[in-house]
Amino acid sequence: MTTRGFTSDNASGAHPAVLAALAAAAEGHAPSYGGDRITAALGERVRELFGQTASIYPVFNGTGANITAVTALLNRWDAVVAAEHAHLVTDESTAPQLIGGMAVRTLPAPEGRIAAADLRDLLAGGGDNVHRARPGALSLTQSTELGTVYSPAQLAELSSLAREGGLGVHVDGARLANAAAHLGSSLAELTTGVDVVSFGATKNGALFGDAVIVLEPALAEPVERLRKASTQLASKMRFVSAQLLALLTDDLWRATARHANDAAMHLATRLEEELGVQPRYPVQANAVFIPVPPAVVATAVAELPVLAWDTSAATLRAVCSFDTTEEDIDALVTGLDRILG
Amino acid sequence: MTTRGFTSDNASGAHPAVLAALAAAAEGHAPSYGGDRITAALGERVRELFGQTASIYPVFNGTGANITAVTALLNRWDAVVAAEHAHLVTDESTAPQLIGGMAVRTLPAPEGRIAAADLRDLLAGGGDNVHRARPGALSLTQSTELGTVYSPAQLAELSSLAREGGLGVHVDGARLANAAAHLGSSLAELTTGVDVVSFGATKNGALFGDAVIVLEPALAEPVERLRKASTQLASKMRFVSAQLLALLTDDLWRATARHANDAAMHLATRLEEELGVQPRYPVQANAVFIPVPPAVVATAVAELPVLAWDTSAATLRAVCSFDTTEEDIDALVTGLDRILG
Amino acid sequence: MTTRGFTSDNASGAHPAVLAALAAAAEGHAPSYGGDRITAALGERVRELFGQTASIYPVFNGTGANITAVTALLNRWDAVVAAEHAHLVTDESTAPQLIGGMAVRTLPAPEGRIAAADLRDLLAGGGDNVHRARPGALSLTQSTELGTVYSPAQLAELSSLAREGGLGVHVDGARLANAAAHLGSSLAELTTGVDVVSFGATKNGALFGDAVIVLEPALAEPVERLRKASTQLASKMRFVSAQLLALLTDDLWRATARHANDAAMHLATRLEEELGVQPRYPVQANAVFIPVPPAVVATAVAELPVLAWDTSAATLRAVCSFDTTEEDIDALVTGLDRILG
Amino acid sequence: MTTRGFTSDNASGAHPAVLAALAAAAEGHAPSYGGDRITAALGERVRELFGQTASIYPVFNGTGANITAVTALLNRWDAVVAAEHAHLVTDESTAPQLIGGMAVRTLPAPEGRIAAADLRDLLAGGGDNVHRARPGALSLTQSTELGTVYSPAQLAELSSLAREGGLGVHVDGARLANAAAHLGSSLAELTTGVDVVSFGATKNGALFGDAVIVLEPALAEPVERLRKASTQLASKMRFVSAQLLALLTDDLWRATARHANDAAMHLATRLEEELGVQPRYPVQANAVFIPVPPAVVATAVAELPVLAWDTSAATLRAVCSFDTTEEDIDALVTGLDRILG
Repeated sequence: MTTRGFTSDNASGAHPAVLAALAAAAEGHAPSYGGDRITAALGERVRELFGQTASIYPVFNGTGANITAVTALLNRWDAVVAAEHAHLVTDESTAPQLIGGMAVRTLPAPEGRIAAADLRDLLAGGGDNVHRARPGALSLTQSTELGTVYSPAQLAELSSLAREGGLGVHVDGARLANAAAHLGSSLAELTTGVDVVSFGATKNGALFGDAVIVLEPALAEPVERLRKASTQLASKMRFVSAQLLALLTDDLWRATARHANDAAMHLATRLEEELGVQPRYPVQANAVFIPVPPAVVATAVAELPVLAWDTSAATLRAVCSFDTTEEDIDALVTGLDRILG
Repeated sequence: MTTRGFTSDNASGAHPAVLAALAAAAEGHAPSYGGDRITAALGERVRELFGQTASIYPVFNGTGANITAVTALLNRWDAVVAAEHAHLVTDESTAPQLIGGMAVRTLPAPEGRIAAADLRDLLAGGGDNVHRARPGALSLTQSTELGTVYSPAQLAELSSLAREGGLGVHVDGARLANAAAHLGSSLAELTTGVDVVSFGATKNGALFGDAVIVLEPALAEPVERLRKASTQLASKMRFVSAQLLALLTDDLWRATARHANDAAMHLATRLEEELGVQPRYPVQANAVFIPVPPAVVATAVAELPVLAWDTSAATLRAVCSFDTTEEDIDALVTGLDRILG
Repeated sequence: MTTRGFTSDNASGAHPAVLAALAAAAEGHAPSYGGDRITAALGERVRELFGQTASIYPVFNGTGANITAVTALLNRWDAVVAAEHAHLVTDESTAPQLIGGMAVRTLPAPEGRIAAADLRDLLAGGGDNVHRARPGALSLTQSTELGTVYSPAQLAELSSLAREGGLGVHVDGARLANAAAHLGSSLAELTTGVDVVSFGATKNGALFGDAVIVLEPALAEPVERLRKASTQLASKMRFVSAQLLALLTDDLWRATARHANDAAMHLATRLEEELGVQPRYPVQANAVFIPVPPAVVATAVAELPVLAWDTSAATLRAVCSFDTTEEDIDALVTGLDRILG
Repeated sequence: MTTRGFTSDNASGAHPAVLAALAAAAEGHAPSYGGDRITAALGERVRELFGQTASIYPVFNGTGANITAVTALLNRWDAVVAAEHAHLVTDESTAPQLIGGMAVRTLPAPEGRIAAADLRDLLAGGGDNVHRARPGALSLTQSTELGTVYSPAQLAELSSLAREGGLGVHVDGARLANAAAHLGSSLAELTTGVDVVSFGATKNGALFGDAVIVLEPALAEPVERLRKASTQLASKMRFVSAQLLALLTDDLWRATARHANDAAMHLATRLEEELGVQPRYPVQANAVFIPVPPAVVATAVAELPVLAWDTSAATLRAVCSFDTTEEDIDALVTGLDRILG
């Protein structure tokens, strides 16, 4: 019997097509470190999707992608600017500091998104002061940690501000697929004006593996070198590439992301209609943040497959996956109904 | 059609049992970051093999294992002592420095092995000098980069010297299985007196994935924390654990390593008997270093699936894998015969 | 003609007694790196002042003292907790990250001081989460960047909270002398419950030179080693030690600090009485933060020897020094009067 | 009574002219962090001496100068190439790794100097291999740690090789003055083809303070930023600048260095003529390496003001300073005579 939950999309397993691609790649010998045919095909596919000057550097996980990509944008005396909830800020231990040596400047993000006004204020502080770490890169998470999505106009404004201030632009796209599915846009449209992208696969049907996608060609060598220096270069790279290629073939990535998004929207609708519970943030990707009375948080987490997102704010997080079913949602709604009494 | 070569054991694919374990692990949801049943079973198996105080921290690759393990042994003002050919020295870019902040002191290793006398001399220099990075750890590669194996007596002498000098002991066991197969010893016998081990699976039938095995319990927390801070914590960890568990079940690791070792020995024998070529180093694990006239190195590398190990020394490297066949060896011997003409 | 201003106490020169001590130390040869008689005498004096288990490690500057001291308190996966205005946060470029590899967690400090409630909330988040950098040290600036002083009770509460949470306690005492002078307390009373102190001399009459004072003996070796590894070990150390010893002899440090504090209080009184301007924060050490209409900030900075502290908040900073005179204050009050018109 | 020895030139005190300059700089207030008149005058003097595009960044000590200068030349995935005895290799703890994140590749230097052939061999290994840290800078010590001096032709050959290989060129000039005095060349002649220089003052009559001199203008910003990020920015910078300016005025630096060189040559001559002892290396700067029977090393170090340089090679080191006198030399020769019996 198989169980599926909502604690995180990284609790999900592997999409059958990804697993099949992995098995197909497993036989025989192939050049290591990316010299293989599958990695070459992946590069070709990425140029089709992101433009002819794009290149892809498969890595093991999202933290590895972020550290490699952001460090490539920074001088040793620079800071990255990111939302207060950014994975880089809250969930990568000291990797940004230990490996990248970077200072981190956070901006408020009440619904997950950085506001242009806040970025403008920070940049007005100036980077010409030798005493303070200079803002060298803006890192935007798309879709955000709160399940919301930057609109193309918001992205354009933020990346313009960043460029004017001399900052490079990074997108943490651990869930970029979910944002593209929500907006109905192509990956290229979503990354206009961006220098480098952490492209997620693990949360979207892969077993492991993400990638750094380089859009500004001058970053190709730094990313390639830093991938190695940050321990993220796979020897049998075909096994990362095969998964990424499977997801990028026939837009499987969009189908899996759309499934997860639709499941989240469906869950949100049922919560609202059946339990009268309104999500704390707009549901635009695959996560639903559910406000509950403080007294039930402990019970909810003990009895239901959800995460206590913010104990002080009494919010549960339910993340949908590529394989979330109506039964899963049904069970969650029923369970919440019981607990909320 | 499948081709197999000898450039490296990381050019090989996946062992069917490993692939099957991966597929079996792929269905359904499971707690992330190691909270799953497979990782628990792996821990249990490791305690059986390495002793009840041992613990295992799966990581993505050998560089990640080494950086995590060695950094855990060092203060920020310490140096690691390693053989001149050690992976840490030659093949991990600046990861030891950038992440671990460690100085690296190398010792000569004419046949891949550090000599006790050299270690003794280095330690006689003293670590009480605040000006020089203090030797804080000894890292031994077993089997070595030159295809040789430390005997248990050699290991015991080196690790004793290290301990007396206040150094921790790390074994880079990217090919520990090959050493154990050669010596006919258990993994526990091979790691007596050792604090922490990089245990390799990638080169021995896995798709990806290695592990840090902690034998000195005080290192458990540092290793766990540093695994995260060095970007090596897998979210869907069951997919690393499943491969490691498959290899550690029914001693599959030993069967695959022995196959590779036997193939190397068979290759060496044929080279000697048929071509009159004596390997440059004793063939004890799965690699054969083949001296050739300098003039043929370029041709050999262009036409045969081998690596030019050391151009100035005119040596080719042929590494055997878990799936190397008689036909592969036959083709290589024939090819070399033609080129050596 | 000599000019003196209020932009910073590091714009001041050298106290005659310090200069005399330097000249006296300059003749002849002496063991380098701290093996000299003056450094020995300094150690003795520090034990008298801070207790028999205290030790002192002279360094070049405040940033060097902070980086050495805080890094000594942290594991590589740890964060330091500091006030939003802390020098470590705003004025040390990427030194904390590049050298210490540390994450930095900031707490609000409306009047320069961290509130116990905020620290309690942060620590309630827990350090057992491997994903987030673990709070490993609390760094308190005494006197604060806003010219205020923690009371002994406030310090005791904060350091108790820190200890209960497993954090080490660091005091950034670039202006510790000013705090002690304000409180009328000894240096030992001010550092009860503290592990390690950055003790400032540069801003209090020295030409250069500060020190790390170790109160928790287990930190002595880490501090000594990290002083070297962070480039802060002086070869002709007697020239740092002589200055520190001069300041610590006959409580010169207290006299110079009291002079600066008194000057600040006098300036504040005159501003209030003559110009009707109330300082933005309580004047407890040697700095006065002067609110002015936004329109005059630029003129004030152009015409008067003060700093624009916070342009958006329209605040000027005037810092008094050991050599500030009545004439200096007179000129500043007159100038402000003219500008405020 | 004043004693002077030969253990190191950093055991010497301050030259009277340097001390006078310091005292003159001590009165009154001045802009901090290098905005003062003395630092401006120093910059002007450096342009006269090194060329109009040169700039100077005063720092606290030689380790700080080296770390700042070399890190400015390197990408995060690069290695510095240096002589086996280089200060960077043997006497800077883990500063190169912890701060600069750099790998260090050493070359043999039997008489202190790197040989062009060895550099050529190392560079032939190629920097296009992503697995190994790429050689990014060559660091040459002039005069060397063994008291020898690179000739202008040797320097030109090495720096040409480095440039062809894409490496930047750094000179560790902790004793550059001694090399210039030996060669009778200007500082500019000695640094042709060099990107960045660590310029030493501490060992040549200053109390503390060295400088990074930038000859390649593109390095000016990196050096300025890294000086701060590596904790080497002095707040009261006039006190470093005043010492450097005093030494660079009327070629005082050359007079002091020449005195030390002459003393060393005189000592060597007397050792040879009176004791029949030939120095181990050519005496070209201010150090004499004295071979002695192994049995007397301990006695020599206990009774004479010299250093045991290399216990296994039974060599003492005697370094002369700007203030070494005939009586000092006399005492040393007499003492050695007695011990060598």
